[in-house]
Amino acid sequence: MAKGKGSDQGAKQNTDGIGGKITPREEDYPQWYQDVIREGELAETAKVVKGCMVIKPHGYAIWEKIQRDLDARFKETGHRNAYFPLLIPQSFITKEAEHVEGFAPELAVVTHAGGEALEEPYVIRPTSETIIGHYFAKWISSHRDLPLLINQWANVMRWEKRTRMFLRTTEFLWQEGHTAHSTHEEARAEVERMLNVYGDFAEQVMAMPVIRGVKTESEKFAGALSSLCIEAPMQDGKALQAGTSHDLGQNFGRAFDVQFQSEEGKLDYVWQTSWGVSTRLVGGLIMTHSDDAGLVLPPRVAPIHAVIVPIWRKAHERDAVFEACARIKASLDEIDLSQPRSRYRDFVEVVVDDRPIRPGAKFYEWERRGVPVRIEVGPKDIAKGQVCVRMRVDTAAGTGKEFIPEADFIAGFRGRLDLYQAELLRIARERMETQTVTLDTWDEFLAAFAGDASVFAWCHWDGTAETEAAIKEQTKATIRCVPLPGQGPAPEPGKCILTGKPSPQRVLIAKAY
Amino acid sequence: MAKGKGSDQGAKQNTDGIGGKITPREEDYPQWYQDVIREGELAETAKVVKGCMVIKPHGYAIWEKIQRDLDARFKETGHRNAYFPLLIPQSFITKEAEHVEGFAPELAVVTHAGGEALEEPYVIRPTSETIIGHYFAKWISSHRDLPLLINQWANVMRWEKRTRMFLRTTEFLWQEGHTAHSTHEEARAEVERMLNVYGDFAEQVMAMPVIRGVKTESEKFAGALSSLCIEAPMQDGKALQAGTSHDLGQNFGRAFDVQFQSEEGKLDYVWQTSWGVSTRLVGGLIMTHSDDAGLVLPPRVAPIHAVIVPIWRKAHERDAVFEACARIKASLDEIDLSQPRSRYRDFVEVVVDDRPIRPGAKFYEWERRGVPVRIEVGPKDIAKGQVCVRMRVDTAAGTGKEFIPEADFIAGFRGRLDLYQAELLRIARERMETQTVTLDTWDEFLAAFAGDASVFAWCHWDGTAETEAAIKEQTKATIRCVPLPGQGPAPEPGKCILTGKPSPQRVLIAKAY
Repeated sequence: MAKGKGSDQGAKQNTDGIGGKITPREEDYPQWYQDVIREGELAETAKVVKGCMVIKPHGYAIWEKIQRDLDARFKETGHRNAYFPLLIPQSFITKEAEHVEGFAPELAVVTHAGGEALEEPYVIRPTSETIIGHYFAKWISSHRDLPLLINQWANVMRWEKRTRMFLRTTEFLWQEGHTAHSTHEEARAEVERMLNVYGDFAEQVMAMPVIRGVKTESEKFAGALSSLCIEAPMQDGKALQAGTSHDLGQNFGRAFDVQFQSEEGKLDYVWQTSWGVSTRLVGGLIMTHSDDAGLVLPPRVAPIHAVIVPIWRKAHERDAVFEACARIKASLDEIDLSQPRSRYRDFVEVVVDDRPIRPGAKFYEWERRGVPVRIEVGPKDIAKGQVCVRMRVDTAAGTGKEFIPEADFIAGFRGRLDLYQAELLRIARERMETQTVTLDTWDEFLAAFAGDASVFAWCHWDGTAETEAAIKEQTKATIRCVPLPGQGPAPEPGKCILTGKPSPQRVLIAKAY
Repeated sequence: MAKGKGSDQGAKQNTDGIGGKITPREEDYPQWYQDVIREGELAETAKVVKGCMVIKPHGYAIWEKIQRDLDARFKETGHRNAYFPLLIPQSFITKEAEHVEGFAPELAVVTHAGGEALEEPYVIRPTSETIIGHYFAKWISSHRDLPLLINQWANVMRWEKRTRMFLRTTEFLWQEGHTAHSTHEEARAEVERMLNVYGDFAEQVMAMPVIRGVKTESEKFAGALSSLCIEAPMQDGKALQAGTSHDLGQNFGRAFDVQFQSEEGKLDYVWQTSWGVSTRLVGGLIMTHSDDAGLVLPPRVAPIHAVIVPIWRKAHERDAVFEACARIKASLDEIDLSQPRSRYRDFVEVVVDDRPIRPGAKFYEWERRGVPVRIEVGPKDIAKGQVCVRMRVDTAAGTGKEFIPEADFIAGFRGRLDLYQAELLRIARERMETQTVTLDTWDEFLAAFAGDASVFAWCHWDGTAETEAAIKEQTKATIRCVPLPGQGPAPEPGKCILTGKPSPQRVLIAKAY
């Protein structure tokens, strides 16, 4: 089938790789990922700016859906958005010892501005704990100022050597929550609360199942006491760290002198947290649902829910077909997709594709963009008062071509989307189950991670950084997390898969993006 | 009256100037502006990052309202959002001759990244015509790819010497529209369409009257054929350039080789436009409506529409008062504030201020934050089934303390907000009329712009850059724009106010922010 032309951005945009073809996953998974992004018109590598990407309209619209839903969740949990400077004085980064060690190698540095060399260079924020700590110190003086619950939507920059669209780019878009509390207990509750916001969002909105856990010492955020994470299984068995929530303890409070007077009149450093998700989520979305025909989108992150394709051959059929398309669009437009309790309402988004190209090319294009529902309307359908419906993926929400009375289709549309959303989650969960194994011997382990293979492996580990490093060295698999209660096999003691030393519980091991 | 304490960000944040006092406008207008921002908890100067500001939650929430409304208008006019890299190869900036001349002095330059010196430095985008032009060249090959209608929400950086919060900061947040068309005519229509989107937004949403016009050659965007603008009168008679829309002609198309094949098979450069508004709008909002008691917000940009203050003295009164407050909030929460035809719905946002501080302090704080409606609920009000209402500004929408039956108040709430919105626009328009003068002699002109004074002056100008420069040199006033049809006095010929040479029509002259 030929590449569909006539898109509003045309053919010339497909310059990232081979034009039009989507490589099957079995053949070359990384190439498939690039192909889906290109053919779905989500993004392209910037090329002229190292490791950056251009997020194209369809990709950005998915990010906007993600932002909108998450932002409402942050506000419901009491957070308010603010904006802090892009540039950070270089000296700030060095104030927290572990933080500088973690981020210094990845910094982009502004040395000149306004035609002059700067006295002190600025770094482009790789994350904003330091500069926000500086302002928290100005804003907080009393326990009455706490908790302070802030979120920022921003771009950040980390000069990574190996980049991959959405998953790891030198510049990326994200949100970073930063909060300050009067007790460690309260801060820890916040860290868990926001991890659960991420976990719920991933499952309910992205239909992406995740494991919630604690990072090991060597994998935690630079400057944190501990980091919680959600880890999502991709179709190739690798794990994507999809969101993190950090207990910063008093580390940044000490570094930036963020003190408060307690109710008893005692001075103490605040307890801080930070948490973030990024455009990386779009990569996770792709590798959770998409197939060899291209992008697959759960309705709750789909910028367009349905496309209507008019089918007609003879000139005299045209008007009636276009009229029917417009009527169906108008009916769908009215359908409220809001979630219960939402302060903002969303409606169904429908496109009537009336371009003068053949229907097959249109089907092909919208399939690759992951639009959940395709509706065909032709003279026969109109005569029968029906529509021809095809879901992007065959599930209990619809299989093959369905011919449905128009009124029934409209009345059932929201239910159809809800079921499709649930089905994509079910399918992803079932895949996760098949990808998840319990391993007890090193031979099994080597076999599971041979070559480029990966699984979600629950294994015993002796708890040492040496063993963790040795596992990574030998297999490229890493300890993704120590599971939170209910997130893995029930804790029972055992023997480390590599050293045979005692282990209190199994941890999640996988290769990671 | 003492500074209200107990805010969720406390007292320590007010570090930008004298604590708590708002300087009257008559006494010191620039200081009043700083005071309103500080006391309204909108922003503070970053200090540690030259010329930057920190946008605090209340200020950022206003920006979010602005973004949300504008974004819907952009989408309704067929634009889609995308995201391009923050960093631009330095060589890109030099490709368009006027562009580099305009922006080179203000660039911030990244020379090092990932621990190494870069072969070619990057500049932080001061605006994105160049890098977007680069991608447009990849995306456009045929007339079928046109028009290409893109918008970007982003941060940009211009290393300005003199900065002022919101009005001019080295980093600022904005949106930049970038479009490509197959004919100059179509591009010009886009330039006008988007100027009208800005003008309508300013008047309908921000209640800020504007004059729509054309920039002179010396004031136009660096690299444009011509620039349209909206100019808003501030309370001190100065003008704020609140939005611009540029006809880029084929200048960037030539510089970045953005060619397309026309229907006739001929190769030609695309015709481009760009248009933007920024966080500067928040400064314009402040200087359009606020008074000596602090911030005043039109409902359509107010993050919080009403605050409910419980009034009680005796412990046994507490429960009934809090119950009534919760009931009123629940009723107001349900009120849909959406505009007709909006794809997204907004609801009334209400805060019950139940902090254990005295009501007077609460009144004072919410007044300074510009919340349109204050509601007091005490035992007597409950007994009478009424609420005590006070609007932030006395207008036809409400004057002084009003005692209104609760049900009537709820039923009339949206109407009250709509009227208050209309009243703020009416007041601003009336002020603009008193600030607008027609001047015909140079003596009148010198008097009108003596010292720090400014008015919106309609004057004849001989059309030369020399005269324009001489006017600026002698009075600091500048030609803000040549009015579009219907935006100023009807065009009639006259004599230049400075040189006496012939002039085809009057132009708008004012001092500018």
